[in-house]
Amino acid sequence: MAEVKLLGSWRSAFSLRVEMALKLKGVEYEYVEEDLSNKSPLLLQSNPVHKKIPVLLHNGKPIPESLVILEYIDETWENGPPILPKNPYDRAMARFWAKFLDETCFPAFMKAYVSAGEEQVKAKEEVEKFLKFLDDELKGKKFFGGDSIGFVDIAGNVLAYWFVIISELVGIELITKDKFPNLCAWIEEYLNSSFVKQHMPDREKLTESLRARFQKTSTAK
Amino acid sequence: MAEVKLLGSWRSAFSLRVEMALKLKGVEYEYVEEDLSNKSPLLLQSNPVHKKIPVLLHNGKPIPESLVILEYIDETWENGPPILPKNPYDRAMARFWAKFLDETCFPAFMKAYVSAGEEQVKAKEEVEKFLKFLDDELKGKKFFGGDSIGFVDIAGNVLAYWFVIISELVGIELITKDKFPNLCAWIEEYLNSSFVKQHMPDREKLTESLRARFQKTSTAK
Repeated sequence: MAEVKLLGSWRSAFSLRVEMALKLKGVEYEYVEEDLSNKSPLLLQSNPVHKKIPVLLHNGKPIPESLVILEYIDETWENGPPILPKNPYDRAMARFWAKFLDETCFPAFMKAYVSAGEEQVKAKEEVEKFLKFLDDELKGKKFFGGDSIGFVDIAGNVLAYWFVIISELVGIELITKDKFPNLCAWIEEYLNSSFVKQHMPDREKLTESLRARFQKTSTAK
Repeated sequence: MAEVKLLGSWRSAFSLRVEMALKLKGVEYEYVEEDLSNKSPLLLQSNPVHKKIPVLLHNGKPIPESLVILEYIDETWENGPPILPKNPYDRAMARFWAKFLDETCFPAFMKAYVSAGEEQVKAKEEVEKFLKFLDDELKGKKFFGGDSIGFVDIAGNVLAYWFVIISELVGIELITKDKFPNLCAWIEEYLNSSFVKQHMPDREKLTESLRARFQKTSTAK
């Protein structure tokens, strides 16, 4: 019998990506909450390179990195809706945007959150430049995946939920309706979809958890 | 008729990744050398987000990012050997290692190259920690892809050729036989394979091009 186990953290958007993909595909799995201040031997041994969650274990074989896991899930379980599009060009574009979120967009957000003064103004401009591309990409579409939630939407949970909360905590406006109407419409559509809604962590609990981290950072500056 | 065009630069290992994949698959293509100090309107319009080479244009549709392009080529042209393995777990691992090279390993190398003194010692330790993982991964294998060149090997051209040259220029020993015997054996096997050999840029010409960049950096420190 296939054994699927996820090492994750309730407060991690990256961990939630994997849970969302498994749920979309209807894959049964055991969820193991990791204490990130005292990582389990199983986590350290399953992801010796990065020592990070999420890690998916399938019949004991470990797969780290959320986007890598999402592709693995899509290729391994054929039931349920596809996560990546079928057409090679659309697949390439989905990979491009997910990579853009993780490698370009999110570091820019983090910089805007932890910086101050002139540096923060510049970081904010950078973020807005990137958000404009995402806003354009969403023009005329309900989701990044078209009519249904796909790879980039799942990857985008950080943007739709975590960053909205952190922006409020830090007191910096980044994703505004006047500048990014399509992106704001996507966030609303995404968070209100019955599938996403039931999987997002409790907003208050997450806010408290993020407050500890981001208020500490901003006091230190 | 399918039109395949590559916007690249002869001195870029990332551009060469795409050429290698196209050649491996036997895809005919038009190569357009970009002047990176004066980028063409076609490049700027094909990759407005990053404004970087390589970009593959297939029937006019642009695909940026070398690893994304490699997957696109593998999914689009079925002739020739596969670039990614067929088994989902092996595919996930190939993606994991290629991502590790680009996002973790290469930035650490660059840091070691441009830093000095205590900072460089630390950066070198970091690089060696990462190289150890790659060395272990190659244990008992000819290539990262097993018996033949695959996704990670193509991604690794930076390591096997560019970084060997830059290390000599900067005067820092990073990939040594005593510490990383499997990795050194892979570099030798890789560079001596008839397929790779014919596609690497001229060593002297590349050395000159890299000298300008890396000697400037080290003088500036």
